[in-house]
Amino acid sequence: MAKKLMFIIVLPLLVVATFGCRPSGSNDAFPGLIKTEVPPRAEGQEHMVGFFVPALDTVRIGVIGLGMRGPDAVDRFCYIPGAKVVALCDLHQERVEKANEILTRHELPKAAEYYGSDDAWRELVERDDLDLIYIATNWQTHVPMALYAMEQGKHVAVEVPAAHSLEDIWALIDTSERTRKHCMMLENCVYDFFELTVLNMAQKGLLGDIVYAEGGYIHQLEDFWNAYEGDWRMAFNKTHRGDIYPTHGMGPACQILNIHRGDKMNYLVSMDATPKSIPEWLKANRGEEVSDFQNGQHTLTLIRTELGRTIEMHHDVATPRPYSRQYNIAGTKGYASKYPMPLLALKGESLSSNPIPDQNLVAHSWLPKGVQEAMMQEYKHPIHQELEEVAKEIGGHGGMDFIMDYRLIYCLRHGLPLDMDVYDMAEWSAISPLSAISLEHNSAPVEVPDFTRGYWNIKEGYRHAFVE
Amino acid sequence: MAKKLMFIIVLPLLVVATFGCRPSGSNDAFPGLIKTEVPPRAEGQEHMVGFFVPALDTVRIGVIGLGMRGPDAVDRFCYIPGAKVVALCDLHQERVEKANEILTRHELPKAAEYYGSDDAWRELVERDDLDLIYIATNWQTHVPMALYAMEQGKHVAVEVPAAHSLEDIWALIDTSERTRKHCMMLENCVYDFFELTVLNMAQKGLLGDIVYAEGGYIHQLEDFWNAYEGDWRMAFNKTHRGDIYPTHGMGPACQILNIHRGDKMNYLVSMDATPKSIPEWLKANRGEEVSDFQNGQHTLTLIRTELGRTIEMHHDVATPRPYSRQYNIAGTKGYASKYPMPLLALKGESLSSNPIPDQNLVAHSWLPKGVQEAMMQEYKHPIHQELEEVAKEIGGHGGMDFIMDYRLIYCLRHGLPLDMDVYDMAEWSAISPLSAISLEHNSAPVEVPDFTRGYWNIKEGYRHAFVE
Repeated sequence: MAKKLMFIIVLPLLVVATFGCRPSGSNDAFPGLIKTEVPPRAEGQEHMVGFFVPALDTVRIGVIGLGMRGPDAVDRFCYIPGAKVVALCDLHQERVEKANEILTRHELPKAAEYYGSDDAWRELVERDDLDLIYIATNWQTHVPMALYAMEQGKHVAVEVPAAHSLEDIWALIDTSERTRKHCMMLENCVYDFFELTVLNMAQKGLLGDIVYAEGGYIHQLEDFWNAYEGDWRMAFNKTHRGDIYPTHGMGPACQILNIHRGDKMNYLVSMDATPKSIPEWLKANRGEEVSDFQNGQHTLTLIRTELGRTIEMHHDVATPRPYSRQYNIAGTKGYASKYPMPLLALKGESLSSNPIPDQNLVAHSWLPKGVQEAMMQEYKHPIHQELEEVAKEIGGHGGMDFIMDYRLIYCLRHGLPLDMDVYDMAEWSAISPLSAISLEHNSAPVEVPDFTRGYWNIKEGYRHAFVE
Repeated sequence: MAKKLMFIIVLPLLVVATFGCRPSGSNDAFPGLIKTEVPPRAEGQEHMVGFFVPALDTVRIGVIGLGMRGPDAVDRFCYIPGAKVVALCDLHQERVEKANEILTRHELPKAAEYYGSDDAWRELVERDDLDLIYIATNWQTHVPMALYAMEQGKHVAVEVPAAHSLEDIWALIDTSERTRKHCMMLENCVYDFFELTVLNMAQKGLLGDIVYAEGGYIHQLEDFWNAYEGDWRMAFNKTHRGDIYPTHGMGPACQILNIHRGDKMNYLVSMDATPKSIPEWLKANRGEEVSDFQNGQHTLTLIRTELGRTIEMHHDVATPRPYSRQYNIAGTKGYASKYPMPLLALKGESLSSNPIPDQNLVAHSWLPKGVQEAMMQEYKHPIHQELEEVAKEIGGHGGMDFIMDYRLIYCLRHGLPLDMDVYDMAEWSAISPLSAISLEHNSAPVEVPDFTRGYWNIKEGYRHAFVE
């Protein structure tokens, strides 16, 4: 029957390819994909793969958004050598003043204060004594702030996801390429201990060829819905289907798969379940009847890469269940799983010492706790090794947010490429609009554009940059 | 961009729908699906939903296939009241004789012996003193044996998966409906303790509305590849893409979602990863260079149901990692996860006693071990309660294979519908050919046919049958 069937449907699928075919550089290796428009790179505009700027002795920072994430960033910068918070902005005066008190507590000069209007942030961005704009605002304002900051000659670090539409993502890429400014997304989960250690194991060949990477964001937000300025997060969930918060899962998966460093995502499919829990919560807690709530109860996305590996992403902020980022990595020599607890399974050949010497371990069982702990120590990532030292000096701030900010400043101060470039921002954020397109078309496959526009294969493998 | 895009692609997708449109009862609610042919039900032929036959005092059994699964079944039948093994068949005489020794050990009369030719099984099936043909042969012979057995007036129990092509699945359905004979698949995992207890919790409302069910078969088969008669399993994996072993995951998921008892599967998408481990194993262990090995390193399938719930299936017999059936069930009041260890998370309202009385548990953390064990005891399924008693009488045979065979004989002896009907066989097996079609078309969505042909909604919820 399958044979007969192929005859029936191959023709219309080719029609789809023809209809969906984009003006420049169409990829016809995969008939039937829904394809989105890739704006051509402007004459003389260069890509940003491996991009770096001359070393900055001091990184002068303006922070916009002092709600749930901003103030802790201000505190962290007080511990990071060469970081200087020069200006602060928020809608609310008291938040700006409270953030300035953090600097005072650290016996640092107060920062300039901007507040009181929806455009106050523009004055901050226009200052001529800033190198970096650090954006920790709501999703809806990330893009205009990042674009204006780059136009004003500033590097940008923006909270996750940086953008939710393909137009916005392409605008950030084109602006970064044209202005030659960094546009980094503040994805912190790539610095978590287990993820970074497993990345190090993979880069040393311990897991063999990586064949599958899984990730996601499973976090019921009932306790948080009322905490977002102007209800922005609920408003977005009410009106958007798809995996609208994909970056915590995508970051570690794409780094270990060397996405745009030797592999690339080719297409994805998404499927969601009818929303139930959040509409019920809205009725029970706000007396709201929302009949057309858009974001699914949970959303699953499957992505296939050029090298024939797969990525699976989960998104669920509705279902009552324990928090999980679904971090699972499968290779031809081993398997790593973080939730519900960190576990490793490795072939005997991958173990520095085989705990059961008379057995050829084939990774059919999880490593004994002691063996795993020894492996995690042995393969601790250089970044964690380095920051243990720093942490000793500055006291205990060894969390993944600190590492993220520390690495951002470290790379800028040493003239190195950042750990996450503008194409990482694009690839990890794009799952939001691309999954929505698939869902709108009954899970039809959607092409993932090559956001590097031809340069996904010039670097061999993902690596963090260090001073020689 | 998404808006513009929809305009571009909606037309060709409708073309697909028109091309793929099937003669009778097309489902145009989902434009763009690949649709397979549904043969019309013959004039006067009746569906089998809720089907049962008059009570049989003794169930006279002929067993075909005495390799990896058959002999243990013969042993189990010796413990089951009313079960009588009358005839045995295998290609090899010594296997038949060894199986007969099992009966002798139990002081039961020897069974008639059939062996020595590829058609010996036909003579067994043609006997006039058999009620049930129990088929535990290789995948390739399930269908001709099951069809001939029903034509010869016997009920059929057949190992998993019953079939791998849609033609074969429809042939089994039509033959069962026409001959009015049971065609049950021997899916044992639906009787495992955790799955059956969670099913009972779900049926009692403990998990709220089920929104997501996950399952699969993750079992690296390196230790088994050389154990299959004539290399049949490797041969099938070499030549077939898709989730070719879906029933261990599908059974528990479909029962808890009431598939064809109030809900139905509408469509699926599949994605696989390029095969690596098995081709490497073939080269290392058999010196075989297989350049066109078909079955993926692992295969993921997403299924959307009529009620907007989702099913996710995993298939991986290649990657070195611990065994898992990926059993995860998400509801609006609780979550159950079996691997790497059985865990439950429940809302306080679902707990018979709240272990932390001053807290409104929202299932953000796993139940404490003691609380979980108490809940597992409190919600033990009636089948497990009953078989604890039986096990006491007959000694310890409380495993899921025993429960499966016991329930088959129990229902036949009491004139009840079987726990798994011919449509369960069809729905669980069909993931194999349907996932292959999706994979052949770059993960395009494929309609899951309504194998009941119009009767998926006449029963309200899945229930095991018991004597009043």
